[in-house]
Amino acid sequence: MSKNNLYQSLVEKLEEISHLNGVMSTMGWDQEVMMPAGAAQARSKQIATLAGIIHERMTHPSLGECLEMLQEKCNQENAIERCNILEARRQYDLMTRIPKRLVQALAELGSRGQTTWVQARRDNTFDSFAPVIQEFLTLKKEWASCAFPEMQPYDANLDLFERGTTSAEVSVIFDQLKTALIPLIDSIRGHDYQPDTSFLKGYFAIDKQAELARIISKDIGFDFQKGRMDVSVHPFCGGSHPTDVRITTRYTELDFIESLYAAIHETGHALYEQGRMPGYEDLPVSESLTMGIHESQSLFWERMIGQSRVFCAHYFELISKTFPDNFQNKTADSLYQAVNACQPGLIRVEADELTYPLHVILRFEIEKDLFEDKIAVEDLPAVWNEKMVSYLGISPPNDSLGVLQDSHWSAGAFGYFPSYTLGAIYACQFYAAAQKDLGDIESKITAGEFAPIKHWLNEKIHSQGRLYTPRELVLRITGEPLNGMRLIEYLEAKYGELYRLNGKGISA
Amino acid sequence: MSKNNLYQSLVEKLEEISHLNGVMSTMGWDQEVMMPAGAAQARSKQIATLAGIIHERMTHPSLGECLEMLQEKCNQENAIERCNILEARRQYDLMTRIPKRLVQALAELGSRGQTTWVQARRDNTFDSFAPVIQEFLTLKKEWASCAFPEMQPYDANLDLFERGTTSAEVSVIFDQLKTALIPLIDSIRGHDYQPDTSFLKGYFAIDKQAELARIISKDIGFDFQKGRMDVSVHPFCGGSHPTDVRITTRYTELDFIESLYAAIHETGHALYEQGRMPGYEDLPVSESLTMGIHESQSLFWERMIGQSRVFCAHYFELISKTFPDNFQNKTADSLYQAVNACQPGLIRVEADELTYPLHVILRFEIEKDLFEDKIAVEDLPAVWNEKMVSYLGISPPNDSLGVLQDSHWSAGAFGYFPSYTLGAIYACQFYAAAQKDLGDIESKITAGEFAPIKHWLNEKIHSQGRLYTPRELVLRITGEPLNGMRLIEYLEAKYGELYRLNGKGISA
Repeated sequence: MSKNNLYQSLVEKLEEISHLNGVMSTMGWDQEVMMPAGAAQARSKQIATLAGIIHERMTHPSLGECLEMLQEKCNQENAIERCNILEARRQYDLMTRIPKRLVQALAELGSRGQTTWVQARRDNTFDSFAPVIQEFLTLKKEWASCAFPEMQPYDANLDLFERGTTSAEVSVIFDQLKTALIPLIDSIRGHDYQPDTSFLKGYFAIDKQAELARIISKDIGFDFQKGRMDVSVHPFCGGSHPTDVRITTRYTELDFIESLYAAIHETGHALYEQGRMPGYEDLPVSESLTMGIHESQSLFWERMIGQSRVFCAHYFELISKTFPDNFQNKTADSLYQAVNACQPGLIRVEADELTYPLHVILRFEIEKDLFEDKIAVEDLPAVWNEKMVSYLGISPPNDSLGVLQDSHWSAGAFGYFPSYTLGAIYACQFYAAAQKDLGDIESKITAGEFAPIKHWLNEKIHSQGRLYTPRELVLRITGEPLNGMRLIEYLEAKYGELYRLNGKGISA
Repeated sequence: MSKNNLYQSLVEKLEEISHLNGVMSTMGWDQEVMMPAGAAQARSKQIATLAGIIHERMTHPSLGECLEMLQEKCNQENAIERCNILEARRQYDLMTRIPKRLVQALAELGSRGQTTWVQARRDNTFDSFAPVIQEFLTLKKEWASCAFPEMQPYDANLDLFERGTTSAEVSVIFDQLKTALIPLIDSIRGHDYQPDTSFLKGYFAIDKQAELARIISKDIGFDFQKGRMDVSVHPFCGGSHPTDVRITTRYTELDFIESLYAAIHETGHALYEQGRMPGYEDLPVSESLTMGIHESQSLFWERMIGQSRVFCAHYFELISKTFPDNFQNKTADSLYQAVNACQPGLIRVEADELTYPLHVILRFEIEKDLFEDKIAVEDLPAVWNEKMVSYLGISPPNDSLGVLQDSHWSAGAFGYFPSYTLGAIYACQFYAAAQKDLGDIESKITAGEFAPIKHWLNEKIHSQGRLYTPRELVLRITGEPLNGMRLIEYLEAKYGELYRLNGKGISA
């Protein structure tokens, strides 16, 4: 077979896998958003059968042979072809290196772990969940030794989400953040001034909230011809293809901010997916880069844009017209101050921009110590609570509000948490670069001109797919590598002003 | 391998195919109900890949070998196992007998035919659609000679939907119907009395319609824990499993009757699916029997129950409270008379219970003559229009309202139409049997007690799956074979009274 034919054969195999992954993803969305409760058992069998077929295709010897023959020649290919070959090779190696027994054990534990965790969190019984963590640690270490034998076990797990980033690098950055943010949060907690957030609670009709979320999501660039917005228990961005991107949010009548910012966050993820490299949508080269880069896109819109003073100013009229009773005598600035209120709390997913990194750092440190056998699973609640006190000054009254709050460990997703904060740092760096490239970005936001910003992200990030490593990408776009100081500077400036820490306060 | 192991191996293969069909069905539902418009191209690739995999599994030599070894032993199995083996064998033979070239040609023409038909109907140009029909006739004759070489080509196509029923049998029944119904419709058309239907048109808020449809669907037995009701362009019943049955309807603010009865119709289909043989949901033995039997279940609820005087009486209060402006000075009897008004029209899907069979008979006769080369494709518009005049007394002003109105031929679904009227006959016979078994069925309906009726259908039909042929089933339940006279007697009695044809008229 000629090299061109070989490459074409690879493309066909990869596209077939992509089509099946698109089907799987639609089934996953359906399960969260549409499926009737009684169908759970039947659906899990359907998903298992489909997963088996996808696994079969992804590990098929004919794919391996095809890659083997292309391997020698891949230096001569163009960048896109080279990327497809290398990414496919990487994926194939990763999957074929894991023994079937281990794949099955992880799947079985993931399913059992989820059920056990739900009960343990409900009953506040860490002891019943501890064995799941212990078993996962054993399996995930074994997995690491198969998948990336050259790496430390925790680094291998981290690599699954943040390829090319080591825990040593993350530790340095997270230590910088801790050093800067703990005192900043302390000084805010001790400050006389606290913004009025009371008007953000009240009654907000759900149909009005849904309408508002749709308007703003569309304004910032979500293409409803190539996507949907629905409701699910946990907000997420799914779908089967860049032309079929599906985001969800959830509504409560008591609070519109949470659902609105969830919608903006998921829209950020969705713009990444909708903006993927045209013409290569079913090939690895167009796939999103890492979890951290994906999160940078959601946080770019949710925080850098959505929680900015200019964004609040632009949407104040629409929001106050939507909820006139709640916004009597309020100004755009009251909105800005209220959505940015810093309130150290127990729950990560409810945390504000400033305290969020400490929730992540706590989890990262614990995961790393677990993998390095520096702490035992049974010590987790005590370690968790100590760190909560020393980082955020609060002590969880029980484990359900502490170590049991997240689902990640119940699914064996160790190494996932750091991506949230790496994403926040990338978002900060990208925003600064956009500001530089686009000129006065703030007056664009004030005027509701989001298209140039979206196009900048499309061009610089979304359509670049996997052509560059995250390191190369951030360097190309911002001129410097991943730099935690950028997040620190941004937070110090923003919260310094918000809380009048430098005598530069603004009037409420 | 022992016989038990062999059978177990067959079960696993069949369940895997069923799981994948469940996935395919969910994708189909999603496409009609949820998918954003821009995803059409990506979706068709995903569906094609999945269809290829299902075809691969259904025609896999290992399945054939397994069936071969079980074949000799299948007389010794119990009824359920025997049915699974025979049904799987039949399906396998049917699929492996068709050359791949022909499968592909039919798929290609189906896709092209749909597009061509949409344009031809829009532009009223039969000539542009005629070649599609011609090509389908050629391919479908070839298909018939591969699939069922012992049958006449049209019978083979009919068999695909109404297994075991020949066009000779259908001709006899349809001739009976024509002989009886044409004069009945004539005398109604010529009659002085016509019921008042004007109050069924007006403004009906869609949320009220949707609420009404859900209440009634639930009342008659639809389990929303194992299903959904949504909106699509054409109402249908889909879903992936008896625990995941999804029905749709469509709403217009100008008319609530169409959407309500569409919802009841689809609920009838859904009850069949939700009531399938417990414990065997992923095996052929539990599958619905034929299109005609399926249609008997939708028509049982839509017509035999839903269009009865007692049903109208039971729901009159709810309906008139839902739409108080439209139901001023109306009675349950005005509702009954209006929903049963007989109005010969051009369009099959809008036809009433009495004229509907003639739309079907016309199509059946044309299909049969086409397959037997008694008429040419180019003569279709003329033949169609002549038959419309002689059966229903109306002449289509153009082909879009005539021969081009249905999508069936654009997909090559020749032999499908008779099922609608066979279903109406079965429904009539089943209703009489239920009346006999359950005692006073009308007072149950009057009281809104639908559960005994649903349970009767569950026991007698839904849970019987494919254990019996339609002929055996109808004989077991009703004591006689398929009998067109039962529909004639029912229609003559009902419409005789409604239109006071025998001097027994009721007051309006």
